[in-house]
Amino acid sequence: MHFHGADILSIDPLERSDLATIFEVAAMMEVYAEHQKITRVLEGAVLGNLFFEPSTRSRVSFETAFYRLGGSVTNILDKTATSIVKGESLEDTIRVMGGYADILVIRHPEEGALKECAEATTCPIISAGDGAGEHPTQALLDLYTIMKETTRSLDEINGLSIAIIGDLKHGRTVHSLVKLLLLFHHIHFSFISPKELSLPSDLLERIASHGHSVREGTDLIHGIRGVDVIYMTRIQEERFLSPSEGERHRGSYSLTKDLYELACGPHARVPILHPLPRDSRPGALEIAHDLNNHPALAIFRQARNGIPLRMALFALILKVTDKIKKEHSLQ
Amino acid sequence: MHFHGADILSIDPLERSDLATIFEVAAMMEVYAEHQKITRVLEGAVLGNLFFEPSTRSRVSFETAFYRLGGSVTNILDKTATSIVKGESLEDTIRVMGGYADILVIRHPEEGALKECAEATTCPIISAGDGAGEHPTQALLDLYTIMKETTRSLDEINGLSIAIIGDLKHGRTVHSLVKLLLLFHHIHFSFISPKELSLPSDLLERIASHGHSVREGTDLIHGIRGVDVIYMTRIQEERFLSPSEGERHRGSYSLTKDLYELACGPHARVPILHPLPRDSRPGALEIAHDLNNHPALAIFRQARNGIPLRMALFALILKVTDKIKKEHSLQ
Amino acid sequence: MHFHGADILSIDPLERSDLATIFEVAAMMEVYAEHQKITRVLEGAVLGNLFFEPSTRSRVSFETAFYRLGGSVTNILDKTATSIVKGESLEDTIRVMGGYADILVIRHPEEGALKECAEATTCPIISAGDGAGEHPTQALLDLYTIMKETTRSLDEINGLSIAIIGDLKHGRTVHSLVKLLLLFHHIHFSFISPKELSLPSDLLERIASHGHSVREGTDLIHGIRGVDVIYMTRIQEERFLSPSEGERHRGSYSLTKDLYELACGPHARVPILHPLPRDSRPGALEIAHDLNNHPALAIFRQARNGIPLRMALFALILKVTDKIKKEHSLQ
Repeated sequence: MHFHGADILSIDPLERSDLATIFEVAAMMEVYAEHQKITRVLEGAVLGNLFFEPSTRSRVSFETAFYRLGGSVTNILDKTATSIVKGESLEDTIRVMGGYADILVIRHPEEGALKECAEATTCPIISAGDGAGEHPTQALLDLYTIMKETTRSLDEINGLSIAIIGDLKHGRTVHSLVKLLLLFHHIHFSFISPKELSLPSDLLERIASHGHSVREGTDLIHGIRGVDVIYMTRIQEERFLSPSEGERHRGSYSLTKDLYELACGPHARVPILHPLPRDSRPGALEIAHDLNNHPALAIFRQARNGIPLRMALFALILKVTDKIKKEHSLQ
Repeated sequence: MHFHGADILSIDPLERSDLATIFEVAAMMEVYAEHQKITRVLEGAVLGNLFFEPSTRSRVSFETAFYRLGGSVTNILDKTATSIVKGESLEDTIRVMGGYADILVIRHPEEGALKECAEATTCPIISAGDGAGEHPTQALLDLYTIMKETTRSLDEINGLSIAIIGDLKHGRTVHSLVKLLLLFHHIHFSFISPKELSLPSDLLERIASHGHSVREGTDLIHGIRGVDVIYMTRIQEERFLSPSEGERHRGSYSLTKDLYELACGPHARVPILHPLPRDSRPGALEIAHDLNNHPALAIFRQARNGIPLRMALFALILKVTDKIKKEHSLQ
Repeated sequence: MHFHGADILSIDPLERSDLATIFEVAAMMEVYAEHQKITRVLEGAVLGNLFFEPSTRSRVSFETAFYRLGGSVTNILDKTATSIVKGESLEDTIRVMGGYADILVIRHPEEGALKECAEATTCPIISAGDGAGEHPTQALLDLYTIMKETTRSLDEINGLSIAIIGDLKHGRTVHSLVKLLLLFHHIHFSFISPKELSLPSDLLERIASHGHSVREGTDLIHGIRGVDVIYMTRIQEERFLSPSEGERHRGSYSLTKDLYELACGPHARVPILHPLPRDSRPGALEIAHDLNNHPALAIFRQARNGIPLRMALFALILKVTDKIKKEHSLQ
């Protein structure tokens, strides 16, 4: 993939070599993300951060990433505050905003809206999610986190064993992560969910046809035993066919410290990931609070990885990686 | 006009020589607006962007312009989020904000509110519109766009023939643009609107007394034939005396590709302007989508011209034009 | 107190020597706050400005202070826009945001919430108020303003005579200011309020046990006679036991020019402070508009002092005071 000036709307066009490029740049970005070093490579550049539905974490993550590179950010957060209430088309809004900014980050509640945006402007666009569609940067930071937490190189992702738990039917981030892992060899997938919320069959078929191994089940302890990585997501009770069915599952997919140690061993360091937000309402907690300070709980490091990862994409698309590499080697 | 530290609340105080100054600086700003060059002349400066009614396009345009000069921006977007709900007067709010920032951009729903703001603080203020009052920077960017699209110098605006279409009675931007054109000689105005929405008589009298020529009519094709510039605005059906009257006009003022070529010729390049937003709801489209990629459609270039134009005003008011000219000649 | 990396959640841990440090740095910051000099000491740094209840003045003041030091700011303004609506705990939100930013400013409607935030992250936090709790930076800027307006050094605050007027029972800023003044000797407090809204007895006891003098009363003129500083706050009529009681007091605590000159003398320059917002609705005005341009009215200078004061805290916590002192002496 040619990054300069490109849109990032999906993970589909990404190849293994693209991942290598992105993660190499992301690793270099970490010192800038942590403010241990300072760069000004995006000085004078403007990011248009267009969120047509709220997503504070994603918005702030992209915004912070752009600041850490020396750029400026204009946020457009409220659908009702835009000209759309005066009858303006999405296309017109994007053509105007694309004329102001160097790059746009867009989140939209409707699947396919991002494609429409990309056709309206030559300004590069990074998707921050479109409805039930994709959220490509989340999948990239998930994989980046897996590499860091398991101290594996990209090649060593081959052979990874990963348990993915929760609503596998609707989970946008799950689908994207699975697709990304299909770029590797011999992945051992352990899918854990209530039957009603299991992974769509077309994805299962794609996995099988690529020669990976699949284990499906409904039991959490059994499913996470022996894996290298645990990827939790939220079970949405409202998604069940009947309320009593939802209640029956309540707590079955709540990972507690006891359960984790029972399945993985008392001194286990199997990293626990989660795309966040974690639902902390009573009865809904997918990762219990007694794991909050456990060294294997990677969820906050994972969120933090979003900064260097998104910095890498900005730097690649706006073609400042050479400049920053030069600065980096001089400092 | 003496720009340094001045308020821009109206186009009335502007003379021809002021326009020459503004447009000369704006032209110099274009390379910075497009991020082809970088400047830091407003480093350490803070713009207070106060929008007491939503106007995303204007807000983002002013914000981006300030960033491109190296400054920082604080947005105050929601009336209910300010201390005004606790009984604070507009004057107090402005005195405080004027004490924080180097310059304020203010939009307010009530005509006259901007004058009240300007009296409250010594901090310079640029109006981003006050109700049915003025929106001076829009008129300036409209004229700047006319010059660029017709490749005319300021002197060559003398003798311009312009068709202005739509709700000429209520259109704030139309009134401001007409007043600005009164600074020139021998303008040929072609006003096209339903009779109920024709230009106010006092403005018509001012035009006549200055020796310009006026053609008024209700027919779009007839009105745009032979002009140098077409300026479309929205016809608001709700403004008619009866709904049936509104419906009768529906579509009469929708400029399509066929209509444009019929009136202006098959290879015409007569620029089409519009202050935006363009209403894209069915039956309301003042510029049809089949013109979206027509080279004469200037509406997105026009929006983009708002950036260098507003940069020029910031630079003049905050007295950094000499500094940037020096940088400019050195780079 | 050791400022580097510290939280500022309360004024309780502050000692006299800490005030000396803060005010010395604040004084140095004034030229940068006024944009007479430029610094870049916080370049690459990111402030997370989290306002879980609206407070435009405070938010913009912190934001502007960070910009004047060369930093970038991400605002999180709306409770409903965060992941909290999806069931995320405050702790999780803060852990994530603390992982993105170098420092957080947080305002929260619930007393005690700030303490919970501070326990969730190692990222330093400055409180911008938590419900009926503290608003430490307001008390600091109040004292800083008293010093500047009365041209007293910190040592010369000993012996100060101050009248504090309004709702002394509920006023968060009043309580914090009183506590801060307890760090000095021989303060003469004149408390003026309706009996129902007098200062809580525990605070009165603390004042007495420290050897300060206290005068309590209900009459405005009598209470402000002979003082060095007048600190007005809002009387909230809705706080009275009966509406008629509230009405009986209406206007008794409205400081007019006549009243001020009657009590303090015709050429008096006794500074008038107010934490703002000032209620300008009819019948509620605690400082009359005929004082708006009086040289003793310090309320807008007071608000402005918030910028260098907050810059000082940022600089101390993020350990850039040495760097800025060096720059300062070189320029």
